[in-house]
Amino acid sequence: MSAVDFENFVHELATVSGQAILPFFRTALGVEDKSRGAVFDPVTAADRAAEQAMRALIRGTFPSHGVRGEEFPDDGVDADYVWVLDPIDGTKSFICGLPAWGTLIGLCRQGQPVYGMMHQPFIRERFYGDGVQARYRGPAGERRLAVRPCAGLEEATLLTTSPLLMSEENRARYTEVEKRVRLPRYGGDCYAYCMLAAGHADLVIETNLNDFDIMPLVPIISGAGGIVTNWEGGADLSGGRVVAAGDRRAHEAALKVLAG
Amino acid sequence: MSAVDFENFVHELATVSGQAILPFFRTALGVEDKSRGAVFDPVTAADRAAEQAMRALIRGTFPSHGVRGEEFPDDGVDADYVWVLDPIDGTKSFICGLPAWGTLIGLCRQGQPVYGMMHQPFIRERFYGDGVQARYRGPAGERRLAVRPCAGLEEATLLTTSPLLMSEENRARYTEVEKRVRLPRYGGDCYAYCMLAAGHADLVIETNLNDFDIMPLVPIISGAGGIVTNWEGGADLSGGRVVAAGDRRAHEAALKVLAG
Repeated sequence: MSAVDFENFVHELATVSGQAILPFFRTALGVEDKSRGAVFDPVTAADRAAEQAMRALIRGTFPSHGVRGEEFPDDGVDADYVWVLDPIDGTKSFICGLPAWGTLIGLCRQGQPVYGMMHQPFIRERFYGDGVQARYRGPAGERRLAVRPCAGLEEATLLTTSPLLMSEENRARYTEVEKRVRLPRYGGDCYAYCMLAAGHADLVIETNLNDFDIMPLVPIISGAGGIVTNWEGGADLSGGRVVAAGDRRAHEAALKVLAG
Repeated sequence: MSAVDFENFVHELATVSGQAILPFFRTALGVEDKSRGAVFDPVTAADRAAEQAMRALIRGTFPSHGVRGEEFPDDGVDADYVWVLDPIDGTKSFICGLPAWGTLIGLCRQGQPVYGMMHQPFIRERFYGDGVQARYRGPAGERRLAVRPCAGLEEATLLTTSPLLMSEENRARYTEVEKRVRLPRYGGDCYAYCMLAAGHADLVIETNLNDFDIMPLVPIISGAGGIVTNWEGGADLSGGRVVAAGDRRAHEAALKVLAG
């Protein structure tokens, strides 16, 4: 079964997770503080309901597959196929009522991301890809996603969720890139990567990402013709420091500045 | 004619401006640099098309009214009633393809804001108010907007579009508030004030706002039970430094910190 065959199933996962989430969006939510510490890390009932719905559908359809999600323990992650789920990427936007959040659904084969989708059920839009191509479906119709050219930092639009999420050292290095770009913009979460895939932005630079925050986005970015690496230019994203670009020239220029 | 009587007309303005804008959203746009200087200040064809459509409808329906908008010269702004228009508030979000922008439509009588609407035509939602009450219509249904209680900064969610938009001195004072709140969040533009009116956020602190950025939002905020003043606590917002709050206790606490 090729990755493309999973497309319909991933759309089903998006539909059930969206149905689980929407009743909780912009309503009075009980917000827990997962960390009980200094960092505010909200977990909503929506997050859990959506992940449970997706896990149940995966278990019923592909019992041999593993599942790794944000909210519940890993399940069979030694399997050939492992689903990587982040029911609400952008929980801070979600609890503020802002629409810049999405559900991330990824499929890895032998550790490599082979299919991914970002679903925004409130706006009703889906960005999805298999590493070879990427597509959009939503209020703006249905179309192929393709990155745009960008020769260097001075003409780049740079997105990041928030520099506040970075360590002091990482922020200092990020800021050096920010100073050189044409337009920096905060507040994207998963939307930032989808906008890059759609050709509306040129760079996304972030830190502290978990695998479920980024793995589902990789086949969308690469399917649209973009590139995503760690800050050293390598493919291993487990360190959480990510540079995504639509054009290799902008990517190389950003890596150079990040290296100091 | 009372402010409430303008409601249907404001909905019409929202509809025609949305029709003018949507063909340009997430398409390859020619972006001009209005300032031709260091600050990147994009103006899109959508901005102009929407303002022209609204001005034509106002001129045809209320020829005695004045109009002040972002894109074209003031027209009869000595009139009793003056419309204040910002066709795309959040142009930076718009050109990045992010949905956190909106069309602001305000009506002032003798300089006082008496009716306001924020319309997001891509998501299809409208936030509107007359200073006495405020309402929402969109994918989440139709309902009254009401602020939520917030006893002080330590339990507050604080929104601002970006600290990068502030002068160094203003940013230092803003940062003192940011350090004390429970959750700071960037990237809102007009959405920030609407989320405050809807009870999903507690504070919005910004600088460098033009009157058309904030006047249309005032009747929504106050109609939902909130308060909006300058950083000194006064009603005059012409200086561009704004503090909006859902609860007077959070508002007072923020003013105190901003005063240094």
